[in-house]
Amino acid sequence: MILAVCMNPAIDLTYSVGSLRPGTTHAVTRVHRRAGGKAVNTARVLAQLGEPVTLCGFAGGNHGIRLRDGLNDTGVTDALSTIANETRQSVAVVDAGEATVFNEPGPTVSAGEWASLLAAVDDRIDGCAAIVMSGSVPPGAPSDAYAQLVGLAQRHDVPSVVDASGEQLRSALAAGPTVVAPNREELAQALGLPVGDSRELVSATAELSRRAGAAAIVSAGRDGLVAVAGEHCWVARPPRLVAGNPTGAGDALTAGIVRGVAQRAAWPLVLADALALAVAAVAVPIAGHVDLDLYRELLEHSVLEEIY
Amino acid sequence: MILAVCMNPAIDLTYSVGSLRPGTTHAVTRVHRRAGGKAVNTARVLAQLGEPVTLCGFAGGNHGIRLRDGLNDTGVTDALSTIANETRQSVAVVDAGEATVFNEPGPTVSAGEWASLLAAVDDRIDGCAAIVMSGSVPPGAPSDAYAQLVGLAQRHDVPSVVDASGEQLRSALAAGPTVVAPNREELAQALGLPVGDSRELVSATAELSRRAGAAAIVSAGRDGLVAVAGEHCWVARPPRLVAGNPTGAGDALTAGIVRGVAQRAAWPLVLADALALAVAAVAVPIAGHVDLDLYRELLEHSVLEEIY
Repeated sequence: MILAVCMNPAIDLTYSVGSLRPGTTHAVTRVHRRAGGKAVNTARVLAQLGEPVTLCGFAGGNHGIRLRDGLNDTGVTDALSTIANETRQSVAVVDAGEATVFNEPGPTVSAGEWASLLAAVDDRIDGCAAIVMSGSVPPGAPSDAYAQLVGLAQRHDVPSVVDASGEQLRSALAAGPTVVAPNREELAQALGLPVGDSRELVSATAELSRRAGAAAIVSAGRDGLVAVAGEHCWVARPPRLVAGNPTGAGDALTAGIVRGVAQRAAWPLVLADALALAVAAVAVPIAGHVDLDLYRELLEHSVLEEIY
Repeated sequence: MILAVCMNPAIDLTYSVGSLRPGTTHAVTRVHRRAGGKAVNTARVLAQLGEPVTLCGFAGGNHGIRLRDGLNDTGVTDALSTIANETRQSVAVVDAGEATVFNEPGPTVSAGEWASLLAAVDDRIDGCAAIVMSGSVPPGAPSDAYAQLVGLAQRHDVPSVVDASGEQLRSALAAGPTVVAPNREELAQALGLPVGDSRELVSATAELSRRAGAAAIVSAGRDGLVAVAGEHCWVARPPRLVAGNPTGAGDALTAGIVRGVAQRAAWPLVLADALALAVAAVAVPIAGHVDLDLYRELLEHSVLEEIY
């Protein structure tokens, strides 16, 4: 079992419009609605891969009920904690080629609700092969929310994968995660280091790994990923680029990482697998799903280079 | 009592963002949620003016419950008909100066649900001083929905005010409305006539009045309005322009028109009143409300010109 923690899930609305023109009124031609949030997407990809996965996090109000409903036929086990305030919405406006996203702030959670989430994770973590936590935290959650969850995982001897940003990422580094997996921009922002060229990116990833005492895997979109684990560094590039929707590709990458960590797989295998999942997610218009045939094809052609 | 009919109401979400940049992700800093839809806004302005007003229309699902909740403290009497599908949402993204609006399509209504709405209006229309109907119609409503409602009003000898567009407006013209009140763009689109300069606008408004056998009042934003009733034509200009949110100004104008019609007031008084309400609505950030002090001030300084 893998435990996924999504502290700030959302009802994701995708609005199809002819052409987005600021300052005008648009008739939305198609509305697609689904349960969303980074760790929700990751949990769904894990379920699609046949991995048993349980989702912890916050759900409140009508949107919270809808969030739970949205998990029904995904294979993800619902262990969400009910809160008083309502789960947020997120709106992605999609026109010819690109997505413009509006993320509502999350519902404010109380200290008691935060304690309930910790208790829910504590109840379920024993015997889990790994825990993955990702995405923003709602107002009211402690500034060291990620650090607390990582500490809990460590006390239970369960490996943890963290995809966070800003202060949450910085405080998590000291708590002893197994893998930290931000994207390039989050890495630059958290450490205040340049990541513009591949040399800088490798160097900053190594610094992140050093500070966390953990493996660091940094996604760089079309450039693939950079990973540093102990004395080793790899750069992995997608075997080919795929047209589609990049939203959720990072969450599929995280799914590959946590699955590899759960299986205690060797790093090169983990990285190749995660990158193939990320590219196979781009091919599917809906975040939180991968094209399994494309995934298997890409897996055989991944380009992994050991830098040192 | 004034009856307001909103066939395609919405939960209106207003998202405040720093700056709207297509193709990027935005953190929404503030979410404002309220019951919306053109006739809902009009009903709310009428209630603010102390007019007894009842709202008919469709409400379904969680958003429908929220729509009804949103009427609770407005003074508008809820006579909405419950439908199986869910009431839509509308999202207005507001940055420094302008609003970018995304309107979901409405919930599909069945023939039985349409009949229920007609019955609800039929039950309440006797003794009403006027009926006002405005806005889009949801999928499944008949293409002559407005014409059916206007016909019903006529059979009960209740004056009707119609703010519609396209085929719905065209079919309503033949059904004998008392006032048709589209905006300039809707007028141009419905009749296929030019409305670019004020001479063309006056001429097209006269043609609309002739075809409807009714008064025609056409709003033209900052240029004020043009009205043709019988042998008379007026142009009214706002005494001064007000900075703010123009969303809902047309619905406040409609509120002034239907109130004037209900009171059997003389046209020049109706027009001056309606225009003052429209400008006083711009001063309030939330659609469906007017600045009553500003309204009273503007009313004394309206500029009304009789063209013929």
